[in-house]
Amino acid sequence: MSQVLIQNGRVVTAVDDYRADILIQDGRIEAIARHLDVPDAVIHDAAGLLVLPGGIDVHTHMEGPQGPAVNCDTYATGTRSAAFGGTTTMIDFAYQNKGDSARQTLDRRLALAEPQVCIDYSFHLILTDVTPAVLSELPGLIQTDGISSFKMFMAYPETLMVDDADIFRTMHKVGEHGGMVNLHAENGGVIQVLIEEALAQGHTSPKYHALTRPRLMEAEATHRAIRLAELAELPVYIVHLSAPEALETVVQARDRGIPAFAETCPHYLFLDEQEYDRPGFEGAKYVMTPPLRPADCQHHLWRGLRFDDLQIIATDHCPFCFNEQPLGLKYSKQLGADSFAQIPNGAPGVELRLMLLYDGGVRPGKISLNRFVQLTATAPAKMFGLFPRKGTIAVGSDADIVLFDPEQRHTLSAAAHHSQVDYSLFEGRQIVGKVAKVFSRGELIVDGDRWLGKSGQGQFQKRAASGRIL
Amino acid sequence: MSQVLIQNGRVVTAVDDYRADILIQDGRIEAIARHLDVPDAVIHDAAGLLVLPGGIDVHTHMEGPQGPAVNCDTYATGTRSAAFGGTTTMIDFAYQNKGDSARQTLDRRLALAEPQVCIDYSFHLILTDVTPAVLSELPGLIQTDGISSFKMFMAYPETLMVDDADIFRTMHKVGEHGGMVNLHAENGGVIQVLIEEALAQGHTSPKYHALTRPRLMEAEATHRAIRLAELAELPVYIVHLSAPEALETVVQARDRGIPAFAETCPHYLFLDEQEYDRPGFEGAKYVMTPPLRPADCQHHLWRGLRFDDLQIIATDHCPFCFNEQPLGLKYSKQLGADSFAQIPNGAPGVELRLMLLYDGGVRPGKISLNRFVQLTATAPAKMFGLFPRKGTIAVGSDADIVLFDPEQRHTLSAAAHHSQVDYSLFEGRQIVGKVAKVFSRGELIVDGDRWLGKSGQGQFQKRAASGRIL
Amino acid sequence: MSQVLIQNGRVVTAVDDYRADILIQDGRIEAIARHLDVPDAVIHDAAGLLVLPGGIDVHTHMEGPQGPAVNCDTYATGTRSAAFGGTTTMIDFAYQNKGDSARQTLDRRLALAEPQVCIDYSFHLILTDVTPAVLSELPGLIQTDGISSFKMFMAYPETLMVDDADIFRTMHKVGEHGGMVNLHAENGGVIQVLIEEALAQGHTSPKYHALTRPRLMEAEATHRAIRLAELAELPVYIVHLSAPEALETVVQARDRGIPAFAETCPHYLFLDEQEYDRPGFEGAKYVMTPPLRPADCQHHLWRGLRFDDLQIIATDHCPFCFNEQPLGLKYSKQLGADSFAQIPNGAPGVELRLMLLYDGGVRPGKISLNRFVQLTATAPAKMFGLFPRKGTIAVGSDADIVLFDPEQRHTLSAAAHHSQVDYSLFEGRQIVGKVAKVFSRGELIVDGDRWLGKSGQGQFQKRAASGRIL
Amino acid sequence: MSQVLIQNGRVVTAVDDYRADILIQDGRIEAIARHLDVPDAVIHDAAGLLVLPGGIDVHTHMEGPQGPAVNCDTYATGTRSAAFGGTTTMIDFAYQNKGDSARQTLDRRLALAEPQVCIDYSFHLILTDVTPAVLSELPGLIQTDGISSFKMFMAYPETLMVDDADIFRTMHKVGEHGGMVNLHAENGGVIQVLIEEALAQGHTSPKYHALTRPRLMEAEATHRAIRLAELAELPVYIVHLSAPEALETVVQARDRGIPAFAETCPHYLFLDEQEYDRPGFEGAKYVMTPPLRPADCQHHLWRGLRFDDLQIIATDHCPFCFNEQPLGLKYSKQLGADSFAQIPNGAPGVELRLMLLYDGGVRPGKISLNRFVQLTATAPAKMFGLFPRKGTIAVGSDADIVLFDPEQRHTLSAAAHHSQVDYSLFEGRQIVGKVAKVFSRGELIVDGDRWLGKSGQGQFQKRAASGRIL
Repeated sequence: MSQVLIQNGRVVTAVDDYRADILIQDGRIEAIARHLDVPDAVIHDAAGLLVLPGGIDVHTHMEGPQGPAVNCDTYATGTRSAAFGGTTTMIDFAYQNKGDSARQTLDRRLALAEPQVCIDYSFHLILTDVTPAVLSELPGLIQTDGISSFKMFMAYPETLMVDDADIFRTMHKVGEHGGMVNLHAENGGVIQVLIEEALAQGHTSPKYHALTRPRLMEAEATHRAIRLAELAELPVYIVHLSAPEALETVVQARDRGIPAFAETCPHYLFLDEQEYDRPGFEGAKYVMTPPLRPADCQHHLWRGLRFDDLQIIATDHCPFCFNEQPLGLKYSKQLGADSFAQIPNGAPGVELRLMLLYDGGVRPGKISLNRFVQLTATAPAKMFGLFPRKGTIAVGSDADIVLFDPEQRHTLSAAAHHSQVDYSLFEGRQIVGKVAKVFSRGELIVDGDRWLGKSGQGQFQKRAASGRIL
Repeated sequence: MSQVLIQNGRVVTAVDDYRADILIQDGRIEAIARHLDVPDAVIHDAAGLLVLPGGIDVHTHMEGPQGPAVNCDTYATGTRSAAFGGTTTMIDFAYQNKGDSARQTLDRRLALAEPQVCIDYSFHLILTDVTPAVLSELPGLIQTDGISSFKMFMAYPETLMVDDADIFRTMHKVGEHGGMVNLHAENGGVIQVLIEEALAQGHTSPKYHALTRPRLMEAEATHRAIRLAELAELPVYIVHLSAPEALETVVQARDRGIPAFAETCPHYLFLDEQEYDRPGFEGAKYVMTPPLRPADCQHHLWRGLRFDDLQIIATDHCPFCFNEQPLGLKYSKQLGADSFAQIPNGAPGVELRLMLLYDGGVRPGKISLNRFVQLTATAPAKMFGLFPRKGTIAVGSDADIVLFDPEQRHTLSAAAHHSQVDYSLFEGRQIVGKVAKVFSRGELIVDGDRWLGKSGQGQFQKRAASGRIL
Repeated sequence: MSQVLIQNGRVVTAVDDYRADILIQDGRIEAIARHLDVPDAVIHDAAGLLVLPGGIDVHTHMEGPQGPAVNCDTYATGTRSAAFGGTTTMIDFAYQNKGDSARQTLDRRLALAEPQVCIDYSFHLILTDVTPAVLSELPGLIQTDGISSFKMFMAYPETLMVDDADIFRTMHKVGEHGGMVNLHAENGGVIQVLIEEALAQGHTSPKYHALTRPRLMEAEATHRAIRLAELAELPVYIVHLSAPEALETVVQARDRGIPAFAETCPHYLFLDEQEYDRPGFEGAKYVMTPPLRPADCQHHLWRGLRFDDLQIIATDHCPFCFNEQPLGLKYSKQLGADSFAQIPNGAPGVELRLMLLYDGGVRPGKISLNRFVQLTATAPAKMFGLFPRKGTIAVGSDADIVLFDPEQRHTLSAAAHHSQVDYSLFEGRQIVGKVAKVFSRGELIVDGDRWLGKSGQGQFQKRAASGRIL
Repeated sequence: MSQVLIQNGRVVTAVDDYRADILIQDGRIEAIARHLDVPDAVIHDAAGLLVLPGGIDVHTHMEGPQGPAVNCDTYATGTRSAAFGGTTTMIDFAYQNKGDSARQTLDRRLALAEPQVCIDYSFHLILTDVTPAVLSELPGLIQTDGISSFKMFMAYPETLMVDDADIFRTMHKVGEHGGMVNLHAENGGVIQVLIEEALAQGHTSPKYHALTRPRLMEAEATHRAIRLAELAELPVYIVHLSAPEALETVVQARDRGIPAFAETCPHYLFLDEQEYDRPGFEGAKYVMTPPLRPADCQHHLWRGLRFDDLQIIATDHCPFCFNEQPLGLKYSKQLGADSFAQIPNGAPGVELRLMLLYDGGVRPGKISLNRFVQLTATAPAKMFGLFPRKGTIAVGSDADIVLFDPEQRHTLSAAAHHSQVDYSLFEGRQIVGKVAKVFSRGELIVDGDRWLGKSGQGQFQKRAASGRIL
């Protein structure tokens, strides 16, 4: 019965901030004290380090299908990269194919992930085919399988998009059983018109990806999602919110007492639409959805993060290589060389979340250290039914712990990260603050640059109700 | 060259209020003066009467198809009823059948209406099949045929509903040429789910018509319509707004400078959802869309009318008899005796608008007399490109004039009105204020209870741009 | 009994726009017709000209006291200047000295103005000393003397400022009798602190006038004024609104149904704070209160004007010469050469309102021609109880009429205007649109550059209730 | 070196919720663990009990002066009552007399409180006389004495009210040094008019206390306080917020990124204005400021508490006996027997806060257990610079701990509470949930009904910056 002792660290939770030793036993936190002396324990000295709850990333796409392409991180490579970034739990996606049952959807994805994952995990179920039979499966999935969140797309007509009736049907059903619906909120129909118009005018460059996905259409769909949820009387969660106009509809909902929640992503906080002006096809690296917005949108998002109108920061890690790769990674951004509409959508980032947020959010005082933990670990855990097992440092919780060096300077680059993707959105950015060690249920899986974890060690997490956090 | 002289009246326009004589020549207003003495003129003494611009009703359904049913007023009977109510111009609808061109749609309706109409008229074109060919016709319709407004439905899936892409395509096209899109703003998809759920639970009574069309879904669609128009950069017009939550989205749009407009109808101002509690099938009389709302919604609408957040009052006259009628009126509310979902939607009212508004709006001081004229005549004319020919009393304008007795008491009833419909929403209501005489382009067509007009005398009005009124 | 005939003009009111001849008899509009032939009438050909209701300027300071200074326009020179600008009615101010009764205040001002004024006029009574005795006079002033508006200052402590209790007492009293309170809405106490701080730091230049009167303090006071009126249940009118934040509080009030009104002034629409960066003491020319704001504030004001959240444009003509003048105009901006806090506050402009608004508002399409008339004539008349005698062109109304040449180019300058002030805010600005002729109650008082009016011909106007226009 | 061990409890903080043993040493939390075995420790079994951070009440009036009256709880009796209610830290008030320095104000109050207080404490300094000398003292008070919050009154003219200039001066000064200003936000001037009017009309009963303090005047002052703070760029804290309209201004400020905070009190959550209809003089018991509001205001407050627009629940314990008491409590509500305006303002409640909130907030699911701790302990500690010493259960924090029995039923009454006041706002109310034991820095001071603490054992707490929590 292994014991691990983390000594002399500065423990930070979503509320607290104190110096203590932490004793881990059987993968869980056994004791927290001013000083602990445990003869047999493996000792880690955390002097000068922050001791944080392991990060929880609730928006990742590992080996995810996207039309003809597939993400270039497997569950093995992607979760290893996540771990190097201090993320110890991930909620990825199980994608329903038309005609498949929800059960098949989950089982297929579990079978794919289970042997590979290096960190604990769950799935949001992506629903694309809402039949009565599928609807009837959902209560069981929530209550027996612990899948309490379902993602639906208001964008991407012909492939992923479902109509309002199906969203509402799903909301009605899952709301009664502790489930929540996550929405990709963009008006897919209008965007499709804009894309067609742009292409008809001969606009094929990556910049038109951004120009055809206007902020107003994100605002529209966000409002629509919230109104449907308001009627269906269940909480609603907006993924990757990027536009101030969309945020405003979330704010208005919350101001009238509606349990509307939203996440944003690091790239919306630290990058802007000027990236699409890069020469040649370079802009394709930044083709994700929603696209990067004008720089003056960012302060609205920071305000939202400070005032809890945005509750979670996730990565939407959805990596596609920029160039074709020799080793089986056959799908890359180059698919869209002739048309922005064919560029695989998505960008990498699962490894950078905590470090970017610490450097760009905590250090300049935009958010407090407690809020940083809240946004990256505690709120995700509570929002998606993983708390208190995950998301905090407290007696009895899983010992998912990150030792974080708040002073270490380093440079972000594709060469330095552990994803299989061949570029970084933040290539060359120098930041301060780096993950030093990572424990997953008490086991040291990352030690500086060394990888000590192994594929398959991640455990599937049955989750409690989602969205019941007010 | 006939001359008509209206003497001693109190002339009221959207701005002015004065005593004067009015000389009409060749159907137009020739002179307005303190005193006019015209030997050959036919004289009407308006002492004690209000002299108002003829009402313009921009939302009527005469002989309109609705699934298996047809409205029970023909263009002849409906416009005669309108005239008795002081309405001298109507904008009715031309309904596109799937597969038809816009031209066919307009021509067919013109052919039907022309020989029958008793008052001047135009059509909004209802688009249900937005093909590239149809889109290419629209600029011509606007500029050559004077059809500058197009109605689209966000409700009634499978029949009238068009998707957001088609709405946006239409907006894009007509916005550039001075056109406007009118939206029936309710989320049809979600409402369909609610209807199915209600029926599945055995709820078939008329009350469920209201319960399955929640205010939140009107608010959702209203917001969506405005966002689409905001992106397409054209004015937008919301028909028959009933819910405070929908009004709030209009207000928010206007507060940020968006040209969003809306009409409401007398029944939303003077009736409420309690009508659906009437015994038996009586509630079916009040089955219109959107349904009647709770009584405390009304004061929000009145506020909107006072502060110009609602610009127009129209009737949405869409009559279906309550009982089967002997004389060819084979479609009635009884179609829905077994299911609220089969009740023909709509209610009569084209004759009552001015009188209800005067009695219930002007007399208790909710709106001024000028505002009353603005809402019922001037704003409709300006909004839909009929001004200055219609909508005001000014030199050179058409002599569409109503002499209104502000003191006459009378009782509303189906027996008293001139529509073919066999019931009144306001049966037995005693009001003060009644239309005394009506002139259409200078011709006296209504004189108390006498009908002096004739079918076919109404003229089609080519309209200028719609919605360019700010 | 003189008759005047204006032929061939394009008559524009707040609603209408038509070609007609206008017959004036005994100073009032006798007839409006397509064509009038009156043998004995004096004929003015208005071909190619707009025929507008005479402008009403509800915010002017003629011979007004300001600490040691007095405005450099007398009632004679100021109203002549107004007339040259197409303004035929003015509401100026009667200033209460502490200890004086309301009656004394009015009588004193009437005695000063009566022999001099060239156009029709009334006063707002400025209350600075709200004793029970003064309060008891107010109903009589409203109902007998036709003084239905009372101005109070929330700024200028020690001199004009009254506290909230006195404002509320006054509101309570006058609201019951058809009166309205006009507020200069700035938080005088806080501004005084900012002024003291600036002076303590040695900041004496004109720019600090603007820096010590922040927009937030205008917003604060505007909100306070409205809340007091909301409680006292009377309409409220905010003078010279300049800040978007203040406008927002007006908008919010109107959105909840409160009769809150506001005016803005041409200088806030066409000038911005960069004027304070002029070399030397030149910035003092632009020292008015509130100060000019950043340029990006202007579009908010224009939106307010379009959507009727701002109802009136007045000049706040409050002229002080820039330099000492030989002819008895001993008080000038130079009083503040050593300290911005001693600069007489105010700027000229009574002559330019219509022309600036036409050139900069109507011509670029920011407001319609009807709205232009509404903002400058009709709304002022209705707001302050002068309608229908003033503010429109209608049978029976006073023949206060402006013939306006919409095509004439000219250059604004101090040399060209008729005020005694020695500078123009718009020196050298070339504009299109010029007043051609002005009639006051049918008498031609301005004919191009010729002055045909005479001092003392203006008549005091007893006004009806103020602010009852919804 | 005493050790105390709390075993088997359910530990709840603002974020966490787990079962653990807690070891206390030297008054601080030494260790938290799944199981602790400490031979020499005094053991308390918390099985079945919640283990909560001691409550922090940031709004109490002990021995506070109010005109001729003084609160009927001394620092000894009041803090004992607080302790029985689970409150282990209080921030009371030091009242500046006109002419006194800030130093004198603090020292005088410290001298009064120190020998009496039973729990840890600090003061907000109430400023009534803002001279330059006093302003110059404030930075030292903040940084040396740990007094980082200053309360000012916008109500009570002639006694406590300060004007906007003085509020702004104070904000300017203390904002730069980590201080915050707390505002009693009601428009005192207008309220004074309403009181005078009511009295003039012969209205003397307690109900008129409520009728003369309208919600709109609370909203006005709240908005004003926030605007001043926005300009002065410091956080602002609104005490005892009661009106939805006031809350709305806080919400609007937060939505635009302003650090505006507010507390509410249990009586606004659980009582309403109907109490003023009690027979005879009974309503005087409920005379506090602001007064109780209509019942439908409560759900707005609960929404604010859920969505963090209200951050703190304090009691505003300000007790005056209802009847004269034999033992030196000579000032009572009876002072106002002839006039509501003479009734000492304030109500008791320091003992009931946690229990009322648990019963009426947590049990019906209006707020979560974590939020309950946040509102009553953690947020107060963070807001007012007491964290992490106070406000949480974490290693190193003071062992201010409450054992709370979540199932115990009991009845509230004046007979049962420990305040000297002779009535209870909640007389006879049966609730579930009761404080079982209370530890102050590790010492057991309350054990069921037994009082084990002693006067003078409370320690003055030097506080860090206030309001810097975002």
